[in-house]
Amino acid sequence: MPKLLHIDSSISGEQSTSRRLTARAARRWSAVHPGGTVTYRDLGLHPVPHFDAVTGLARMIRPEDRSRAQQLSFALSVELVEEIKRADTVLLGLPLYNFGPPSTVKAWVDHLIAPGISIDAETNAGLLGDTEFIVLAARGGGYGPGTPREGWDHAEPWLTHALSPTGLEPRFITAELTVAGSNPAMADLVPLAAISLGQAETAIDELWATDQAAAS
Amino acid sequence: MPKLLHIDSSISGEQSTSRRLTARAARRWSAVHPGGTVTYRDLGLHPVPHFDAVTGLARMIRPEDRSRAQQLSFALSVELVEEIKRADTVLLGLPLYNFGPPSTVKAWVDHLIAPGISIDAETNAGLLGDTEFIVLAARGGGYGPGTPREGWDHAEPWLTHALSPTGLEPRFITAELTVAGSNPAMADLVPLAAISLGQAETAIDELWATDQAAAS
Repeated sequence: MPKLLHIDSSISGEQSTSRRLTARAARRWSAVHPGGTVTYRDLGLHPVPHFDAVTGLARMIRPEDRSRAQQLSFALSVELVEEIKRADTVLLGLPLYNFGPPSTVKAWVDHLIAPGISIDAETNAGLLGDTEFIVLAARGGGYGPGTPREGWDHAEPWLTHALSPTGLEPRFITAELTVAGSNPAMADLVPLAAISLGQAETAIDELWATDQAAAS
Repeated sequence: MPKLLHIDSSISGEQSTSRRLTARAARRWSAVHPGGTVTYRDLGLHPVPHFDAVTGLARMIRPEDRSRAQQLSFALSVELVEEIKRADTVLLGLPLYNFGPPSTVKAWVDHLIAPGISIDAETNAGLLGDTEFIVLAARGGGYGPGTPREGWDHAEPWLTHALSPTGLEPRFITAELTVAGSNPAMADLVPLAAISLGQAETAIDELWATDQAAAS
């Protein structure tokens, strides 16, 4: 049975564009994969702990020497990695906060980058390359080529680089200018925001088209 | 009396290059500012909480409508911003983890970006521009121009952009290749690592030279 892992990280609840996009993608996936199972994780409501000084050393010492806090931290890393290994497809909702990822997504990634779990400790080969990884990104402003803030989205390029040792390769579907409707200074951009959202939704609706064709 | 705020975020304790550099800079500051006072915050040992879904809304609702958790989150944002306003100089130790900042530094910045506290809610002017901000950065690999991983340091450019609404402008002093000595595959890079560390230390030792000259 095909398996989907659906992860949200927005702190904006029902106002969230990234949550709206992951929900749409999950519905699309379920329609194309009847009988598939979905696992859900909410990093915005239930963040994973920071990879802090107490737990960080867990990776560098022998299992039998780990403190209780270190054992728990290591077990969480294993749980998060296994969740991905079990999935055929991962959907991640990725809002842009202060020009970077949510700190909860950074903490999640810090747990995922783990030699011996997600990376072969001998060969350095990534062990998560069999999982499809689709990122539904949302950003309040405009960051396209030629705009004043081109290059200020530090979440997408970082995520690609950070996960590269594991073999996970994000495919981004991004809606931008998401705050245009609520920011009077951005009123002129409302039509562009609608186009961006529409393009993202179309891209979602075309996901797994090949699977569908192969199945029919 | 001049005031210094010294912040570390590394999870590596005494092995940390960024902690070694902030300690050197704090000693230098104290030597140049006799009678100055130093406040210390350790984000690696005592992380600030993620800016999560429960607390994120605290910024958007009236103070009298805030839940207890929202009140505490907002009070923490105020505390972190006031700590910077009180300081003449902030030192931040910034290690690079998985090509980005520690999640604790992201969470700290998310708390700092607060209209009405660090940003004038009417004019959008940054309110922290009077504080000098020196970042002592350390990264395990090499990221300079022409290297294979040029552009993979997503912490420094992000930090500059993220804090720009507050008026805080980071000046970076960076030591790189810090893991060369412990990674056999990087043995050839040990001499370059030593040069990079030496250059960072020299840059630290030359900080506040103008103040010193003016005072003598």
